[in-house]
Amino acid sequence: MVKSCHGPFSDILVIDLTHVLNGPFGTTILSDLGARVIKIETPGHGDDTRTYGPYLHDKSLYFSFVNRGKESVILNLKDDGDRAIFLNMVAQADVLAENFRPGVMARLGFSYDDLAKINPRLVYASSSGFGQTGPLALYPAYDTIIQAMSGIMSVTGFPDGAPTRVGTSLSDLLGGLYMFSGVASALYAREKTGKGAHVDISMFDATLSFLEQSLMDYVATGEVPRRIGNRHPDMAPFDVFECADGHVAICCGNDHLFKALCKAVGNPQLATDPRFIDNTARINNVAVLKQALEASLKRQTAAYWLTTIHNAGVPIGPLLHVSEAIEHPQAKARNMLIDAGGIKMPGNPIKISGYLDPMVRAGAPELDQHGAALRTEFAVRPLSAAGRRS
Amino acid sequence: MVKSCHGPFSDILVIDLTHVLNGPFGTTILSDLGARVIKIETPGHGDDTRTYGPYLHDKSLYFSFVNRGKESVILNLKDDGDRAIFLNMVAQADVLAENFRPGVMARLGFSYDDLAKINPRLVYASSSGFGQTGPLALYPAYDTIIQAMSGIMSVTGFPDGAPTRVGTSLSDLLGGLYMFSGVASALYAREKTGKGAHVDISMFDATLSFLEQSLMDYVATGEVPRRIGNRHPDMAPFDVFECADGHVAICCGNDHLFKALCKAVGNPQLATDPRFIDNTARINNVAVLKQALEASLKRQTAAYWLTTIHNAGVPIGPLLHVSEAIEHPQAKARNMLIDAGGIKMPGNPIKISGYLDPMVRAGAPELDQHGAALRTEFAVRPLSAAGRRS
Repeated sequence: MVKSCHGPFSDILVIDLTHVLNGPFGTTILSDLGARVIKIETPGHGDDTRTYGPYLHDKSLYFSFVNRGKESVILNLKDDGDRAIFLNMVAQADVLAENFRPGVMARLGFSYDDLAKINPRLVYASSSGFGQTGPLALYPAYDTIIQAMSGIMSVTGFPDGAPTRVGTSLSDLLGGLYMFSGVASALYAREKTGKGAHVDISMFDATLSFLEQSLMDYVATGEVPRRIGNRHPDMAPFDVFECADGHVAICCGNDHLFKALCKAVGNPQLATDPRFIDNTARINNVAVLKQALEASLKRQTAAYWLTTIHNAGVPIGPLLHVSEAIEHPQAKARNMLIDAGGIKMPGNPIKISGYLDPMVRAGAPELDQHGAALRTEFAVRPLSAAGRRS
Repeated sequence: MVKSCHGPFSDILVIDLTHVLNGPFGTTILSDLGARVIKIETPGHGDDTRTYGPYLHDKSLYFSFVNRGKESVILNLKDDGDRAIFLNMVAQADVLAENFRPGVMARLGFSYDDLAKINPRLVYASSSGFGQTGPLALYPAYDTIIQAMSGIMSVTGFPDGAPTRVGTSLSDLLGGLYMFSGVASALYAREKTGKGAHVDISMFDATLSFLEQSLMDYVATGEVPRRIGNRHPDMAPFDVFECADGHVAICCGNDHLFKALCKAVGNPQLATDPRFIDNTARINNVAVLKQALEASLKRQTAAYWLTTIHNAGVPIGPLLHVSEAIEHPQAKARNMLIDAGGIKMPGNPIKISGYLDPMVRAGAPELDQHGAALRTEFAVRPLSAAGRRS
C-alpha cells in the first residue's frame, strides 16, 4: 500500500475507474490532499494514456502527470472473480470515480443505484463530456469538440483571425477540477446525512460556467459576441503590447494609472489627448491608442519596460514561455514544480495550513504495480466460523 | 435573511470580504450549494464591479453573475462599531473568504492568526494573484498579467500569429474555483479535527496547474513549447477544419476512425496514402493532411458535414458561438442557463443527487440590501444578567 500523504482526505479510500485525462486529473487532487486512490486498469495495456507521448525514461508523461501517488491493479470487470474483488473494494470505499461514456457502468451492473445498495455511504462521481442527462449525453466528446461547442473557441483569438483553441485541454481539466469539487462537497454532506450521493459532472457544463464577459455581453445585448484579441472588452489600455524584443501585458484600471503610464513611456501628452481623456474615450479609440503606445514601447526591450513601468506604479507583467513560468522563483517558492517519481510536474495549488505540501511525491504506478497486494487485501474470504455465528 | 437553497453546505455561514471576480466566483459556488453568504462591502459604491458594464435593467451583469444569492451589508472595517459587528460575525461563521492583496487583512488586525483566536473552527480562505508567500506575493496581478506570466498565452494561438489571451478571465475564475475546492476540503477536515485552517490560493499557481501538454513537452525535451494553433500535438487529424460556411472540430484517435472520415468526405484514397498511413505519418504531414481534408470539406456546409461525418461514426462537433452554446438544448436540459433575480446567467455545474438544482435562483443583492437586518442580527449586546451569572 502506498503511504498516502498527510492531508484533509487522509481517511478516504477512492476506487478510481477513470482514464485518459479528465477523471484522472480530478482523482489526482484527492491523492494530493491525502486520499488513498486505487486505480483500476483494464487488462492489456491499461489506461490508454500509458501509450501516449511525450515520454521520459520510457514513462509516458501524459500518464505520469495525472496519476501520481495512486496504486494500480488490473481487474477484468467482466470476470466473476475480479468483479467480486471490485465489489469488495466498493463496499469499503468512500468514493468511486468514473468517466466512461454514460451507460457503460450501468451495463456492467455498476450504476450508482447498484453500488449504493452495497454501500449507501458511497460518493459516486461521474464525469463525462456532456453529463449523464440531456439530448447530447451520448454524443462523442473530446476536449477539442467541447471547446468548439461551448463557445470558448469563438471568443478566443483575434477579430481578423480564426477561432482559436485554448492552448491546453481546458474542458477536460475543468471537468476534473469540478469533479473533485463535487466529491469534496458530497463528502462534507455525508458527515451530516450519513449518506453518499451521485455527483454528475459535464465538461460542457464546466466550460459554460467559465464564459464570463462574452456571455454577459450576450445577455445584455442579445448579440453574438466576437473575438477581440488580447484586450479587455471594457477597459483600456488593458492588453498585450509589443516591445523591441517581445511582449508585455499592461493593465490600467483608471485615469491615474494611464497618466503614469504615458509619463513612463515618455509620451505624457497622450494623457491629455481628447481621444484618450477617460476610459470611455480610450475604449472608443482603442486601436489608435495601442498604436501610439507601441510606437514608444518598440523603442526599448521588454526588460527595460518591465522595470520602468513597474517603477512608475503601473501594473505590468512579462509574457513568459511555459518553461520560464514553471521555473520562476515564485513557482519554486510555492512548490508548484515538484518531483513525483523522478519526473518534474506541476504541484498542488490547494495550499491548506496544517498539512505538508511536499516537493517530492510518489510517482505514477506501473501497470498492476500493486495488483498482488490489492488482490490479497480485498480478497473475498469465506465467512469465518465466528462470522457465521455473529 | 435570504433563504438559502437546500444543498450540501446549507449549515454553513460564509463571511465574504471578496471583491471583483476571483473571490466572488468562489463564494458564489458556496452559495449555489446552499451556504448562507454575507457579502461585506465598503462604504461608498461597494464592490467595484457594481460600476462595471455591461448593464441590464440598470444592473451590472459583471456584479450580478458572481454575487447571486448573497446578502449585502456595508461595513467600515476601520470603524470601531462596525469592527465589533464584523468580529461578532466571524465568531459565528464557518468560513471567511477574502481576496485582498496579501498584507491588507493583517493591517486591519484580521489575519488568520488574529481571527483563529476568536474562532478556532474558522476556515479562512485567501485568494490572490500570486499567493500569500514567495517573491511575487505583492506584485500587482490582473487576469491578463497572470495569463501572460503563467505561459498559457505563449501556447494559445497560431505558429505564425501573436501570443493569445484565452477569451475569458481564466486565471481569475480558476483562482475562484480552487478557492472553493480548498474551502470544501478544509470544511471536511474540520469534521475530523474540530479545527479550521488557512486556505491560500494563487491565480498563478492555479493557471500553472492547467498547463498540461505544453509543460509535458518541456519536461520531456527541455525545449520551449510553441503555439501550434488548434490541432492536437500528438494526434491527427484532431483539429478545427473549415467548411463552406464555417468550422467544425473533428477528432480521429485511431486509423479506423481516419479511414471512416476519408470515406465520409468522399476521398477514401487518403487513408491508403503513405503520408497518412498511421498516426505518426499523419503528424509528420499534418499541414498537408489538413489541406487535403479541407479541400473536400469546403465543398459543403458545416451542417452537411456534421450529419454526414457523425453518421459515419467519427467524432465531430460544430463550432458554436457563445449564444448558441448557452441556448443549446443540452445546456437547458441541465439547467446551465438559469434566471437569477430576473437575469439570465450560467447555472451551477456541480450536480449532486438529493439536492435541488433550481432554474430560478435569488439574484445578486442591492448594495447594503440586508444591512439593517444583519446589523441587528449580529449586534454586540451587553452581557445579560443571566450571561454574567453563568
